[in-house]
Amino acid sequence: MNQQQVCQQIADFWTNKMPFNQLLGLKITQFDRTKSEVRFLWQKQLIGNPLQNILHGGVTAAALDLVGGVVAAANIIDNLDDLSEKNIQKSLGKLGTIDLRTDFLRPGRGEEFIATACIIRSGNKVAVARMEMHNEKGEHIAFGTGTYMVG
Amino acid sequence: MNQQQVCQQIADFWTNKMPFNQLLGLKITQFDRTKSEVRFLWQKQLIGNPLQNILHGGVTAAALDLVGGVVAAANIIDNLDDLSEKNIQKSLGKLGTIDLRTDFLRPGRGEEFIATACIIRSGNKVAVARMEMHNEKGEHIAFGTGTYMVG
Amino acid sequence: MNQQQVCQQIADFWTNKMPFNQLLGLKITQFDRTKSEVRFLWQKQLIGNPLQNILHGGVTAAALDLVGGVVAAANIIDNLDDLSEKNIQKSLGKLGTIDLRTDFLRPGRGEEFIATACIIRSGNKVAVARMEMHNEKGEHIAFGTGTYMVG
Amino acid sequence: MNQQQVCQQIADFWTNKMPFNQLLGLKITQFDRTKSEVRFLWQKQLIGNPLQNILHGGVTAAALDLVGGVVAAANIIDNLDDLSEKNIQKSLGKLGTIDLRTDFLRPGRGEEFIATACIIRSGNKVAVARMEMHNEKGEHIAFGTGTYMVG
Repeated sequence: MNQQQVCQQIADFWTNKMPFNQLLGLKITQFDRTKSEVRFLWQKQLIGNPLQNILHGGVTAAALDLVGGVVAAANIIDNLDDLSEKNIQKSLGKLGTIDLRTDFLRPGRGEEFIATACIIRSGNKVAVARMEMHNEKGEHIAFGTGTYMVG
Repeated sequence: MNQQQVCQQIADFWTNKMPFNQLLGLKITQFDRTKSEVRFLWQKQLIGNPLQNILHGGVTAAALDLVGGVVAAANIIDNLDDLSEKNIQKSLGKLGTIDLRTDFLRPGRGEEFIATACIIRSGNKVAVARMEMHNEKGEHIAFGTGTYMVG
Repeated sequence: MNQQQVCQQIADFWTNKMPFNQLLGLKITQFDRTKSEVRFLWQKQLIGNPLQNILHGGVTAAALDLVGGVVAAANIIDNLDDLSEKNIQKSLGKLGTIDLRTDFLRPGRGEEFIATACIIRSGNKVAVARMEMHNEKGEHIAFGTGTYMVG
Repeated sequence: MNQQQVCQQIADFWTNKMPFNQLLGLKITQFDRTKSEVRFLWQKQLIGNPLQNILHGGVTAAALDLVGGVVAAANIIDNLDDLSEKNIQKSLGKLGTIDLRTDFLRPGRGEEFIATACIIRSGNKVAVARMEMHNEKGEHIAFGTGTYMVG
């Protein structure tokens, strides 16, 4: 497999085999070293405030954490010479979120939510990503910054 | 109703009527101005990493966001003279998370998770809470800091 | 005075009369509601690591905190109808940093450092700004996110 | 030299030979793997708000960044078998702040300020510290959380 195929396979695995991503309906729609994207649809079960019908803050944090982890993973893959399954598993096994800041800008209302991430610090041990979440109208719902262990 | 009854009623409402708290099984077990507590049990659907069987970072962030919001809400209630339902709804309607930092210390493994929060900055507009999450063995899973709009 | 003159006057005051800004040589070079800018020159006394000759993290945090506060102040001024000195002082007297996240991306090396900020959440009580710091070669030194009390 | 002597020597070096620590008067008064302490006295040149006579946020951030770095350094030293100068320099050369969150709780007023730190995540690549700053009356001025590269 080439890198693009590897990335597609991981995107499918994380979308379809990670129980919590499935529970929330988080779908990885872009898995690239320069930019990643995660999308999910509004569902009643994601409501955190029943009086106002807005997303729970934990849903937003989950989407931002995932999309930042995806762009970090794409950078790990991009630096691998050996694309064997064993080496990919070993390398991604080191991936983990160290810390995550979420800035809630506007109430989480909309029909679809789009979270994107890009890398602002790339190292062989630690990577830092900046994330954003908008709704389908382009309204800016949240910002995030995440520090990830990558090696 | 006195303040204690009001707090109990809100705790029940947030535990039983907030769809996302129910989806995750988050239960408010202490609703007090000095300290709040949220508990939830391990469930397979909360897994974020199927190879390692650990909680999704978004679950941890959701629990920390909730428990910080609970202690902030308890401080709002504590400052109210008028405990009518209308005034309580109006006051709690202003509550919202501005930003949340989550520090992931150890892999999220365990049978039960206990998140606690206390207030470190108390104002009539903004409150800041510090949160912790342990598992049933007392292992420290995560720290958090949250800034909340309260007025 | 019109708004532009008021902003210029505050920029001069903060640059020349705030002892710590003077100590570090922080100069406000743009004071605008859409974007603010702070510049300072390399000085030996700003060194935090004598073996590597790089800026102390506190210098970077100070520049980011200031430039975020400037854009928050410009938004406060922009919303004022009454531009009397008394009203400006009263309004800016409420300005304060609630929390600040600094992400250190590269070692702080260079001859001049340029910090910029824009507002990502604008409210009548709380504003959130995102900041960046580059050196004169355009190398990205740091990112920041700050939450400010504005009313 | 034994570990205690090494720590004392580094504390002296960082207090006396780091230009920015000297400029601010930051003194390392405890250099220990379980807890570190930094103290500094009020000085007019540290003022960030001349109308209110309070510390600049950058001063607080600098003290928190330093005290967190000290406890991280003490943990690095504690894990070394080879206490030769060359090995210590090599090991401490990897130390760097990745990100820092500062929560400003109260106006920075007082005669002396005491910042303390303890480690909440200890790894061979990344460490996370939580910091606090009080004044001489025990008033709580600020909290901090810092993520440090340590290997």
